[in-house]
Amino acid sequence: MTIITSKANSVVKNAKKLHQKKYRKSAYLIEGWHLFEEAVQAGVTIEKIFALESYRDQLVAFPQTIWVSEEILLDLADTQTPQGIVAVIQKEEIGLPDFRQGKFLFLEDVQDPGNVGTMIRTADAAGFTGVIVSDKSADIYSLKTLRSMQGSHFHLPIYRLPLATFVEEAKKSNLPILATTLSRESKDYRELFSLENFVLVMGNEGQGISSVMAESADQLVHIGMKGRAESLNVAVAAGILMFYFS
Amino acid sequence: MTIITSKANSVVKNAKKLHQKKYRKSAYLIEGWHLFEEAVQAGVTIEKIFALESYRDQLVAFPQTIWVSEEILLDLADTQTPQGIVAVIQKEEIGLPDFRQGKFLFLEDVQDPGNVGTMIRTADAAGFTGVIVSDKSADIYSLKTLRSMQGSHFHLPIYRLPLATFVEEAKKSNLPILATTLSRESKDYRELFSLENFVLVMGNEGQGISSVMAESADQLVHIGMKGRAESLNVAVAAGILMFYFS
Repeated sequence: MTIITSKANSVVKNAKKLHQKKYRKSAYLIEGWHLFEEAVQAGVTIEKIFALESYRDQLVAFPQTIWVSEEILLDLADTQTPQGIVAVIQKEEIGLPDFRQGKFLFLEDVQDPGNVGTMIRTADAAGFTGVIVSDKSADIYSLKTLRSMQGSHFHLPIYRLPLATFVEEAKKSNLPILATTLSRESKDYRELFSLENFVLVMGNEGQGISSVMAESADQLVHIGMKGRAESLNVAVAAGILMFYFS
Repeated sequence: MTIITSKANSVVKNAKKLHQKKYRKSAYLIEGWHLFEEAVQAGVTIEKIFALESYRDQLVAFPQTIWVSEEILLDLADTQTPQGIVAVIQKEEIGLPDFRQGKFLFLEDVQDPGNVGTMIRTADAAGFTGVIVSDKSADIYSLKTLRSMQGSHFHLPIYRLPLATFVEEAKKSNLPILATTLSRESKDYRELFSLENFVLVMGNEGQGISSVMAESADQLVHIGMKGRAESLNVAVAAGILMFYFS
């Protein structure tokens, strides 16, 4: 059994490139056993596995495993505790969402990978049909987003679309767009009834939703606050709304 | 006007010590204009202000201002963009919470400063009376927690108590303890009615609530999930519950 110990090894170097978004065209990295098991269960293509030799028994069914030293594993991971495994996962081809029915979440230019990941995880927990992220939102395949998602991208489809395409598709299917704003000119969510089919829009952390989105929305909605906080964290707000509407 | 440019300056050095918890016995650092304005509004004691000379007009009413170079400010702050101001705030003395009435949040050993800060911010937005953090939770006076709280610690009282003291005080005042668990053996929150007075308990990110807490609780509660996610982020879960119960 060969154990790779050199960072100069080309297989290691190519895998490490996946830390950068520009190289994640067709594949991405995951780290840790939890995500690895989710990937196996989801039946996605696992191109390569980098693991410590001590996990040989657990990986007997995976000929694509490459044994590496602890140092190489730390180099491939981006946490201090990669838990013995890093894998290269093939991205799945995904078309346009079917907006004729279901509960969807649209993230408009959400910047923080942790927020994007947490909202996708919450959409999964709330039983949503799918999530669409605008093309200016944080990449869902960064290690940080993947950590926050905790495998939810294996449970529900995630689409990446420009704002215009999203709006066009939603309108074509008559899917009601509920867009979240901070403005009290809109309806408090508690005044709205639960809907069968809709898309909930969460905006950018600093700017909120765009004016294009505000004009395209069928209903603007806000979370009325009793205290003196000026706003809620976007992922918390999304959680409150998704669980209320579902 | 003297502008301090040396990191070796003792005033700067002492302020910088406040980055470490062990030195934050009686004071803590805040950074940025938003928090500074919240501190002024709250009427707390601002011991020292470190600012760039370009903000002289805004700080004319604050003789405790010390003018520093950009380099010193960056050194005192922990973000790349301290927005021209860092201040030393005196901690307020705070007794035991009055549990006879109100809606409270108790954080049992929550480790992540971002989670602690976000939950306090959400409690503020939901109009809660106060927040109690267990003595093993993340420090609320770290710059990271303060950033997530966005000034909410100026809006509602935050107590730091050992678990045993918290339980004792709640029992003494007959305050119902609702403790969140992942176990479906407990009640789904939607089966519970809103209460006038209660304390909601959120547990540690990995372990959840302790067995002592589970035994002390008047009601165990969980968030029933439709999807395949195994759990919610603790701050998202807290947001859903606080807005439901308030």
